[in-house]
This record gives sequence, structure tokens and C-alpha cells, in this order.
Amino acid sequence: MRVLGIDPSSQSTGYGILEFNENQYRVLDYGTIKPSRRSPSHKKLLDIKAGVDRLITQHAPEEVAIENPFYAQNVKTAITLGQVRGAVLVAVAGHECPLFEYSPLEIKKAVTGYGRADKNQVQTMIQALLNIEGGKMEEDASDALACAFCHLNTRLYQKNIEESKI
Amino acid sequence: MRVLGIDPSSQSTGYGILEFNENQYRVLDYGTIKPSRRSPSHKKLLDIKAGVDRLITQHAPEEVAIENPFYAQNVKTAITLGQVRGAVLVAVAGHECPLFEYSPLEIKKAVTGYGRADKNQVQTMIQALLNIEGGKMEEDASDALACAFCHLNTRLYQKNIEESKI
Repeated sequence: MRVLGIDPSSQSTGYGILEFNENQYRVLDYGTIKPSRRSPSHKKLLDIKAGVDRLITQHAPEEVAIENPFYAQNVKTAITLGQVRGAVLVAVAGHECPLFEYSPLEIKKAVTGYGRADKNQVQTMIQALLNIEGGKMEEDASDALACAFCHLNTRLYQKNIEESKI
Repeated sequence: MRVLGIDPSSQSTGYGILEFNENQYRVLDYGTIKPSRRSPSHKKLLDIKAGVDRLITQHAPEEVAIENPFYAQNVKTAITLGQVRGAVLVAVAGHECPLFEYSPLEIKKAVTGYGRADKNQVQTMIQALLNIEGGKMEEDASDALACAFCHLNTRLYQKNIEESKI
């Protein structure tokens, strides 16, 4: 199964394409979508939407997982984050990819075993779990891979449960 | 000049197309975009985006005005509202229509002369100003027309200032 994980953020939306096949995880791609700083905010959102469109067309993930935040510093930050999520969700909705959402707590727990792990711990663990070498990766990209990892784990767990019932 | 005013809301996004020509306002269309209640949230956002796309293609407004809220009950509501704004902004960004944003205070002031007017007063005034008969219209639609009216007024004011300079 191939999953696209997304961590929406207005400056830099992280993405990660993760595959689980023959008992192995394989990272196909990861990075960030960074709209031009000079663009007005609605054009930035269009850039993010176009970026997600491209990723889905290029990698054909079977499912998409996105981080669902419950926290923002204040209402203004929450609206800005919501706008980016809106752009991402519109892109996903344009494809036949089922969408799944996970809270930061679920993602941290899946990756580190501890729901209150800090960003650094999540990053170190996801790089170790997925064998990503070459120094520290961008935080938004590792968060997106963590989200994809969390979703694949949930799927595998569900599959095991179903199989054990048979 | 022809303006599309939009009042984003997850249940019912209001819109109004308003024209000012030969010293007269003319309402070309107004209503609400209501995504199917049964759809998952990202498909609802796609419906809203598609609705705004259709309006721009059909009425070819020269400019778009959108309400920019500074308030939401809580972070969750703010993220939900932000997502709808994201879908609307992505739609607008896909067309060559300049976008303008107005605070609720600016809109209320433009329509009623008073920044703290309640929703009922705004509705009554906008229907009177634009000669809209036939009982009470939907609140989201009247808010959208109020936003378009506010933008046209701002434009007319700017034009008068410029002409008086010559």
C-alpha cells in the first residue's frame, strides 16, 4: 500500500510518500511545498493546492493521511492554518483517494510510542525507522512522513485484527 | 464595475454579484453555496470551490471582495472557517480577478454607517439600499452583498479622491 502523508503549514507544507510492501517500508519521496513569499495569500494557497495535485498525479497514492491539529496559538493563526488545510483538502477531494486524519497525539504515539514526544524525538525516530540518512531532514517533511507512517501502521493493525478473526 | 462578494461559511457560503453603472447599483445574482450535508468535509470544500469557480466564469466579475473575520468562538471553529476560506481563495486565485478583503466592522460601517450594527440591521439596510423585495433574504447572501457593496463604495470613494486631485 502506498500513502501520501501531508503536514499543512502556510510557509512550508510537508509531504512524504511511503509504501509498505513485503514487510518493508519504502520512502518514495519527501519534501516541502513552499509557495513564493512574494505572492499574495490566495495565490500561495493555489500553489499549495497545485503541489498536492502534482504529488497525487505523479505517485498515485492509494490513500492520503493528513495531520488534524486541535491547537493553534490564537484565532488568527488557526484561520491561517485552516486556509492551508482547505487548499490541501480541495486538492485531495479532486482525486479518488480516500482521506484519513490523525491527531498530533496519535502520530507521535505511532512513531515514538509516546503521545507527548517533542518534535525532535519524532524526527529522530522517523529517520531511524525509515532508514533516512544524510543528516537532519526538514521538520515539515519528517512530520508528513510520520503522518503517513501512523496511517500505514493503523492499516496494518486493522488488517492483523481482521485476519485473526478469520 | 462588477463585483463578486463572498461570505464564507461551512454550511452555507453566501455570494452576491453587484454592479455599479451610470450611478446605479444593480444586483445581478445572489444566493448561497450549500454543499451536500452527507459529503465528507473535503468533498464539501471541493463543492464550495466549484461553486465559486462557476460564479466567476458565469458572471465575469472584475474584482472579488471577501469578508475577513478576526473572530471565531474557538480554535476548532476558526480552523473550520479557515478551511472554507481556503477553498474560496483557491477558486479566486485560479482566475484573473483581483481579491480584496474587508473586516466585518468595515462592511457594517459601509452599509449601516455603524461598525457595531447587528446582523438584522445589516440585512434590512442592504435590502433597502439595493431595492431587494420579496421578504427576508438568506443572511449569508445579504452578508455577501454587503461585502460587495462595501468594496464598490471603497472603489467609488477612491475614484472621487483621485478625480478631485486632478
